[in-house]
Amino acid sequence: MTLDPKRTVAELKELRALTADANGAQRVAWTDTWLKAREWFAQELSGLPVEHHYDAAGNNWATLAGESEKSLLIGGHLDSVPNGGWLDGSLNVLAGLEILRRINAEFHGRPPVTVRLVDWADEEGARFGRSLLGSSAFAGTASIAADRGRTDRDGVRLEDALRRCGVEVDRFPEATREQKNAAAYIELHIEQGPVLERMNLPLATVLGTKGVERHAITFHGQEAHSGSTPMNARRDALVAAAKLALEIRAIAGKHPDAVCTVGSVKTFPGIVTAVVGRCEATLDQRDLDPTVLATMFREAREASERFASEERCTVEWSRIWNIEPIAFDPVLLNLCDEAIREVARTTHRMPSGPLHDAAEVSRAGIPTVMMFVQSVGGISHNKIEDTREEHLEMAVTAFDRLASKVIAYLR
Amino acid sequence: MTLDPKRTVAELKELRALTADANGAQRVAWTDTWLKAREWFAQELSGLPVEHHYDAAGNNWATLAGESEKSLLIGGHLDSVPNGGWLDGSLNVLAGLEILRRINAEFHGRPPVTVRLVDWADEEGARFGRSLLGSSAFAGTASIAADRGRTDRDGVRLEDALRRCGVEVDRFPEATREQKNAAAYIELHIEQGPVLERMNLPLATVLGTKGVERHAITFHGQEAHSGSTPMNARRDALVAAAKLALEIRAIAGKHPDAVCTVGSVKTFPGIVTAVVGRCEATLDQRDLDPTVLATMFREAREASERFASEERCTVEWSRIWNIEPIAFDPVLLNLCDEAIREVARTTHRMPSGPLHDAAEVSRAGIPTVMMFVQSVGGISHNKIEDTREEHLEMAVTAFDRLASKVIAYLR
Repeated sequence: MTLDPKRTVAELKELRALTADANGAQRVAWTDTWLKAREWFAQELSGLPVEHHYDAAGNNWATLAGESEKSLLIGGHLDSVPNGGWLDGSLNVLAGLEILRRINAEFHGRPPVTVRLVDWADEEGARFGRSLLGSSAFAGTASIAADRGRTDRDGVRLEDALRRCGVEVDRFPEATREQKNAAAYIELHIEQGPVLERMNLPLATVLGTKGVERHAITFHGQEAHSGSTPMNARRDALVAAAKLALEIRAIAGKHPDAVCTVGSVKTFPGIVTAVVGRCEATLDQRDLDPTVLATMFREAREASERFASEERCTVEWSRIWNIEPIAFDPVLLNLCDEAIREVARTTHRMPSGPLHDAAEVSRAGIPTVMMFVQSVGGISHNKIEDTREEHLEMAVTAFDRLASKVIAYLR
Repeated sequence: MTLDPKRTVAELKELRALTADANGAQRVAWTDTWLKAREWFAQELSGLPVEHHYDAAGNNWATLAGESEKSLLIGGHLDSVPNGGWLDGSLNVLAGLEILRRINAEFHGRPPVTVRLVDWADEEGARFGRSLLGSSAFAGTASIAADRGRTDRDGVRLEDALRRCGVEVDRFPEATREQKNAAAYIELHIEQGPVLERMNLPLATVLGTKGVERHAITFHGQEAHSGSTPMNARRDALVAAAKLALEIRAIAGKHPDAVCTVGSVKTFPGIVTAVVGRCEATLDQRDLDPTVLATMFREAREASERFASEERCTVEWSRIWNIEPIAFDPVLLNLCDEAIREVARTTHRMPSGPLHDAAEVSRAGIPTVMMFVQSVGGISHNKIEDTREEHLEMAVTAFDRLASKVIAYLR
């Protein structure tokens, strides 16, 4: 049995038919639709001579034992956001499945190294606001105390939703046992951005995941009557925030891959007849280089203080969340470049703005790399998320080449 | 009996004690507290030989008949916003009462011209969102069909709330009868802005009320992932709106008294991890000169289109409301200047940003002028609204001088 990338596309469509409605994919982790997707996947695995189990965090492992216990891990996630796309996470799992079939056939059930396919639990964090849940348990970075009491919008506790699926939060630490013998981790993912489409390239090697600084910024000015307050007597909190919303482009613009985003602005009292007395904004800054990230954060903070001062306002910062940049393994990066070149002639290296399970695996000290395939229009987390079928097929082929190269490297 | 400005201050405090709570004045039109204020005021009038009635729109008229039927109208409003101040509207009415007492005493109950004190109904529009209700009925500019079905936040209809106070919306047009013999209208008001305080002046002559252009502006860009979308691939609707929020200062800055305000900004989806796909803003522009107002509107609109184009967004404008500038009577402006100079040595002429009942009276073709007294910190519509007592006393004295000058001019 040889690699059949068209089968992967067909299986993706089958999964979509099973778990999507008119609004898109509904495979939200810890829901019945997600369990249905996992059940379907278990049947897909049934023809293979793999050991299959769920770990203590609900990650789904299929292991094809090799001559060596040294293991190549291939990962993805079947869970989606609500009203999601057909590829985010599932492409990774189903491409991995096709590769497992090819390896099993080629090596008559016994490859030189052990190959393990993992379907991570709750990558999206869509229901409880906690992404990378399963992979962080695997990496030993999960925050059980902080996560246990999270609730969904119906008030259901994370702890209870997991128990219903047979997962006990208190046993999360046992998931780190799966790290045993792990020698490399590879993951294929849609880009979820417009870069490859704009470069007219199907595939890229992912350098790592960008670090994130995420902050709430509040400017305090003075609410005033819009009719009776002369322009030069105002302390307009919106003006200070507007200056910052423009300045972050200059701050990001000094670095080739950096991004800075003001995603939310709220004005108070927020009525047509009043100068804005208080303006709340959010800032999200990302880069792969920790020095760049730290510089951008400092520059945004200094700029906000300068603008507050210019407008006779004050400004407060409060950190919402942050994570350090994760750089992938240099040897695996080269192997990924080679694999892509063999299939698409040209490759490209780029960081990932979105986080992925690969970041957690890398934090566990396991050499890691990811491959990106082009997204149509750069759109994801939406029912119109798409990738051209020829690109999907190229991705499965290149990803298979990468698996072969890593096996050769590990043996 | 001579004019006693200290009595006006004492009566303002008495009214506050009767109709305010810990959060400020609660004399919202068509409520029991407002009716209580009017009842108290009727008792205050009882010692004067005045004819007293409510017109078809609920305006409260006290008429001291003079040798001539030609009438000087003095106006104010006892109603307040919820959690309002002690002076907005009430100062006008109680200063008018004191002046009526002085005129009655001086002319032994029969002044050369008729003097009428009016407490307009529902100047603030706080409950039903329709300001200048009583004075617009008087002017014949009321929009009965549009206003009848307005509801308060409890769902009570304007029509029903008025009926409970003895006012039938259908009879509004009869209120124009009160225009008969009206030869001049004068109104004293707190400035509600910081201009006089900054100039260290107690009083000013009001040139008129600024015209207003009030618009909702929506920028449409493209929602995108804040991590995966490069800066140069974005169509950020917030950036276009931020440019406009800054540009309106340059637009207003070309004209000495013009103001432009972005009071509300809303971002969609408005989450920390997404580039803003849609941004809704409000713009309020005011000036006394119709040409300036029209120019500012055109410039803001053109700027918004330029910024939308720069950011590869589109922009839509929708008018919320507008009113033309109202210029007060040149003869009365001079008399007001004279009255202020006699009391405060120096006067100043300025337009009013906020609207007042005087604007409606002026629209009825009655020569009109207003006098402003300094507001502490420029704050109004708030329980901390205040004016120094010496300034209140100067205001009553100067306003009385104005009344005398207008009577002399009319006789």
